[in-house]
Amino acid sequence: MPRPAGGASAPDSRAAVQCALNPRSVAVLGASDDLMKWGGSILALLRKFGFGGAVHPVNPRADAVQGIKAWPSVQAIGQPVDVAVIALPQERTEAAFEDCAAAGVKVILMVTSQFAESGAEGAALQDKLLAIARRAGMRIIGPNCMGYFNSHADMNLLNSQALMRNASLIKGEVALISQSGALAGAMLARAYDLGVGFSICVSLGNQADLEVCDFLDYAIDDARSKVIALYVEGVRDGARFIDLLGRARAVGKAVLIVKAGRTELGQKAVQSHTASLAGEFRAFESQVRHAGAVLVDDFLELIAQAAAWTRLPAPSGPRVAVLSGSGGGGAVASDLVGEAGLQAATLGATTVHKLLPLMPEAAAHLPFDLGAVPGPMRSTPQWLRQVLDTMLADPGVGAGLFLMTTMPEMAATAATVVDVNRENPKPVAFVNAASSAGAEAGAKLKAEGLVNFASVKEALGYLRNRLAWEHHENEAPAPDAKAQAAIEKIAGEFSPGLVSEFDAKRLLAAAGIPVTRGELARSEDQAVQAAASIGWPVVMKLVSAQISHKSDVGGVVLNVGDADAVRQHFRALQQAAQRVPGASFDGCLVQQQARADVEVLIGTNWDAQFGAMLMIGIGGTLVELLKDTALLPASAGPCAIRRAIQALRLFPLLDGYRGKPRVNLDALVDAAQRFGQLAVQLGARLPECEANPVMIAGDSLVVADARAVWLPGAPSMS
Amino acid sequence: MPRPAGGASAPDSRAAVQCALNPRSVAVLGASDDLMKWGGSILALLRKFGFGGAVHPVNPRADAVQGIKAWPSVQAIGQPVDVAVIALPQERTEAAFEDCAAAGVKVILMVTSQFAESGAEGAALQDKLLAIARRAGMRIIGPNCMGYFNSHADMNLLNSQALMRNASLIKGEVALISQSGALAGAMLARAYDLGVGFSICVSLGNQADLEVCDFLDYAIDDARSKVIALYVEGVRDGARFIDLLGRARAVGKAVLIVKAGRTELGQKAVQSHTASLAGEFRAFESQVRHAGAVLVDDFLELIAQAAAWTRLPAPSGPRVAVLSGSGGGGAVASDLVGEAGLQAATLGATTVHKLLPLMPEAAAHLPFDLGAVPGPMRSTPQWLRQVLDTMLADPGVGAGLFLMTTMPEMAATAATVVDVNRENPKPVAFVNAASSAGAEAGAKLKAEGLVNFASVKEALGYLRNRLAWEHHENEAPAPDAKAQAAIEKIAGEFSPGLVSEFDAKRLLAAAGIPVTRGELARSEDQAVQAAASIGWPVVMKLVSAQISHKSDVGGVVLNVGDADAVRQHFRALQQAAQRVPGASFDGCLVQQQARADVEVLIGTNWDAQFGAMLMIGIGGTLVELLKDTALLPASAGPCAIRRAIQALRLFPLLDGYRGKPRVNLDALVDAAQRFGQLAVQLGARLPECEANPVMIAGDSLVVADARAVWLPGAPSMS
Repeated sequence: MPRPAGGASAPDSRAAVQCALNPRSVAVLGASDDLMKWGGSILALLRKFGFGGAVHPVNPRADAVQGIKAWPSVQAIGQPVDVAVIALPQERTEAAFEDCAAAGVKVILMVTSQFAESGAEGAALQDKLLAIARRAGMRIIGPNCMGYFNSHADMNLLNSQALMRNASLIKGEVALISQSGALAGAMLARAYDLGVGFSICVSLGNQADLEVCDFLDYAIDDARSKVIALYVEGVRDGARFIDLLGRARAVGKAVLIVKAGRTELGQKAVQSHTASLAGEFRAFESQVRHAGAVLVDDFLELIAQAAAWTRLPAPSGPRVAVLSGSGGGGAVASDLVGEAGLQAATLGATTVHKLLPLMPEAAAHLPFDLGAVPGPMRSTPQWLRQVLDTMLADPGVGAGLFLMTTMPEMAATAATVVDVNRENPKPVAFVNAASSAGAEAGAKLKAEGLVNFASVKEALGYLRNRLAWEHHENEAPAPDAKAQAAIEKIAGEFSPGLVSEFDAKRLLAAAGIPVTRGELARSEDQAVQAAASIGWPVVMKLVSAQISHKSDVGGVVLNVGDADAVRQHFRALQQAAQRVPGASFDGCLVQQQARADVEVLIGTNWDAQFGAMLMIGIGGTLVELLKDTALLPASAGPCAIRRAIQALRLFPLLDGYRGKPRVNLDALVDAAQRFGQLAVQLGARLPECEANPVMIAGDSLVVADARAVWLPGAPSMS
Repeated sequence: MPRPAGGASAPDSRAAVQCALNPRSVAVLGASDDLMKWGGSILALLRKFGFGGAVHPVNPRADAVQGIKAWPSVQAIGQPVDVAVIALPQERTEAAFEDCAAAGVKVILMVTSQFAESGAEGAALQDKLLAIARRAGMRIIGPNCMGYFNSHADMNLLNSQALMRNASLIKGEVALISQSGALAGAMLARAYDLGVGFSICVSLGNQADLEVCDFLDYAIDDARSKVIALYVEGVRDGARFIDLLGRARAVGKAVLIVKAGRTELGQKAVQSHTASLAGEFRAFESQVRHAGAVLVDDFLELIAQAAAWTRLPAPSGPRVAVLSGSGGGGAVASDLVGEAGLQAATLGATTVHKLLPLMPEAAAHLPFDLGAVPGPMRSTPQWLRQVLDTMLADPGVGAGLFLMTTMPEMAATAATVVDVNRENPKPVAFVNAASSAGAEAGAKLKAEGLVNFASVKEALGYLRNRLAWEHHENEAPAPDAKAQAAIEKIAGEFSPGLVSEFDAKRLLAAAGIPVTRGELARSEDQAVQAAASIGWPVVMKLVSAQISHKSDVGGVVLNVGDADAVRQHFRALQQAAQRVPGASFDGCLVQQQARADVEVLIGTNWDAQFGAMLMIGIGGTLVELLKDTALLPASAGPCAIRRAIQALRLFPLLDGYRGKPRVNLDALVDAAQRFGQLAVQLGARLPECEANPVMIAGDSLVVADARAVWLPGAPSMS
């Protein structure tokens, strides 16, 4: 799977997005005086926010639209047109495309729907339009989208109720790229309520041509976009997407993502919505998290989090100090802190000492119940400011969370929290739980550009995600050139299809992963000789090209202790093969019998969207029962692999649980990393490879069984 | 633990609550013209909403307060006073209590703080005031609370910003009882925003006297309270609380509870807030769920859910039909449906057929993307109404969820959803995700009394809780009188303290639970004889009153196959006892060796707040690793026990996982139920009893080891 370095888009895509977001001239096909029609509202909204470029209504039945000269066709305009908006019924779009092509339009924004999302007929028409565009060198945004804007260029082509209701386009720092137009509208509405603006806001619809990666690429380079928020249904080129996330991280921009289609039903919904294939969410999640992007599960929370990212300092650690005017609120919030995966802060003695002039000793502990402080103390000037500054200065406090319930002086309280966030290196997230009774406080925060979180859970979700983002680190493992050569050589000998245990283990051994010693024996004598050289007792396994699951046919014998037993079992295995119709007997594998304190599974598979994935599970048959597996990009380095293993529910089995020996975790991490590197190297040619069980006993690790599938015709990654 | 039948409060508590919520006269001690003071705002708010009874300001330094004649003391009033509000500094409260006592006040509402919540000194004063009240027959609400109201009596003594900002007290159907006053204020503010009223709203503070159960008791009987919402920090009398929840359910009133102190940090916060002991949350949760009440984890969600309970029809099943003006919104909501523990509805062929005049076939599937329906179809009159009615009529749809993003005609859409909920037997929960762009729709819903859910998650939480409540059923197991007599007889022979395995198993056997056959042998000969009569092989276990964990000292031998081995192990066990300093050798237990496909743990323990609890875990040592246990009230019946076992993550181990035999679940349920009944019968006398392992193989179940603690001095339940 060849891919461009650094996830860059083709030069013409970059130029097209640049042009789409910064056009010198816009034509609106279907322009209308009726603001209830798309061609009416888009034209009106383009003019409303003071676009400085040329605007050309196109409508064959009118001389002027909304007071501006109208043209019967794009060709008739007689001037260059950067962007043509097509707001016409589906059946008139083909002629419009021909008109645009003849006029040399650069980018078409197609808001019309009833294309690929509506079935085969629509998909065919979409392909036809794409072909016209390709021929003419035009690029398309949409169809089935709601448009886009670039606030810093005063250029709005997004059709949204939120824009109709607001006088200005806030020039903000959050780049929003959304496959769904209606959700973009809802997110924009919340952003207005928070007083937060978008640098660009793009709705993509069916992505017939330009797609989320093209705009993500733009946002990464756009100096005015500090944080990037994505609503994604499906990603067309997973590798490019992941590379772009890595590039965003390299330039210090957080990418926050809501992914629809995480569940089966969501996947169906996505398919009929923008004709996207949602893909397998676990692979998406694993890749995106590994690349250091942030996943959020609700679109309104996405906006609150993205906004907070641009407005609040980063937490310095996971310990959250809760404050509330309500002791009950503090208690509820404290319960939620732990459930959000954060920790509760406690204050050091020095801090408590500093607080004593500000509150009675009985109140000087977290969570702060401001209501428990006598009124006269609270009413000294700058009291809250001093409390907050003192609290944040404690090295045991990573962040504050202020839960405002209905209380006196709410607006002044909000103003203090604004100042504290401006002048401290740690944040105090503000939750407005006073509903409309807290409206003045909300207005204060909005005016000052601090985020009003809607709930304690929303605020904690932000703090957790921000902290994880700040502390994310990935290290790329160094490739082992010698191993790579050995792997290619061995794999080159494989026949296509199922790879035998013997060969699969040779491959793993070439990658530097310990496997049980074993020999292939084609006769009783060979088997006895093999056993003697390996050491007693041995394991004997049936070898047959046609039989993949040996255990199911009685093809595995443990604890074979002497030569007579070897001969007897050799014959039994031969008979077992004969009982399976069509199966040949290709001999028998005589192997070292390994002992395990814990059995582990390591596997890789090839994901069509994201390439090689690495999976690790602990506990033999429990892995399947508990669905307790770590999934990582196969390129993951040792730290990421270690973290993922330690996060497994069954990790205590490796860590000295109930008197069992603690195993050598380094050996497991090393084996898993080598396994991943093997999968990266062989790419799609190795769609599956699994070592199960991997026997771990104290310091020793050895693969006792393995299988793989080999498809030499598939492209490699290199 | 004797308790009143049906959780009723003592008659004087009932009369006091009745009087407090429906007073004929109220005196306000500390009444002031300054509305920034408590004595000023409470008096003003009492008069604001048209209280019809007598109002007496008490202030020795004024002839009149807020234009009403003021009195120097309560005694000076010279008329009966039902409720005296004490809004005085802490140091003046004792004199005020004496004044009230002398004047024959019935109930004191004490908003003053700095009592038990502030430390030992405050606690001592609180006790002193309580003694004065007891002596005079007065009852207390508070201290450290914010008051209460009864909207239907136009009687407000709650001091809240939300009440200052609103012209009227909405006469509602939700009874709110909250230990925290500030949270009550925040919840009231949200209720105003939703257009929802409270019948009563009570803030309880330290509960020095009257407590949550007394008001819960009132709300259950109050015809105007249809749903009861509680914010609880700690429950003083767990058994009474649970009985009241049962009574609420019996009269068809849902009780929704936010419990603070679910985690360790929350527990500390609770302690310093209202001096409550939060107790062990798992026991609380288990008891409350079993009693059919509803747990919610956020106080704003509590109000939205309680409000919806009074306004929406109940879902008919777990399958939720999602609709949105946004295809992306529908996809995100569909993902969240499954994560909330609900299922996604699909439409039957008949329903799709009926929808075809209303939308293109490609759009006639769930989740509905209303934006995918061509405008001309959507604009026919009553279009949305017909779509919703048709969808709800499908027997596969249990409830609808309408996710409104920014879209045209939002207010009209909201009006339609209001009508649909009024005229259908199934609900459509409405989520307003359009922020202030959806303000008109929100106002419409508020005016019509339907709930604007703030997020998809909040709406789904409501649907899930409502459905669980509607389908909750508990059956009380029939007591086994013969077993009860046998249990008392055997337990009567126990010495206090640790009960030996032999005796613990006799107790379980008396309860009707199968235990391994075994005999106590005090000599080698006895041991050989016992083994012969039990059947080979046997298990041999050391018996020593001083040794509880036999395995740790090598005191358990499996697979003893013949008489010689019995003799040899008998001697070895004797030596093992001798190696433990101070331990006696009391012989050895010779037992049937049971086989297990799965090992199970069944245990009971005595919870100080809630009485006997039953615990069940599957999987031997995995139980502890995964903390995968079911916790139930010991009185649970077979259906509840079965549901709890089936909900365990490791349940597949019992259910034919990977070719293992499916075990006889009835036998396990029966054993667990008998175990629970045993614990209920013996009450606090049996603080702990555990059978571990319980060996299950196919149809057979037998307890292989057991232990217990016996405290005959503790009270029984009967």
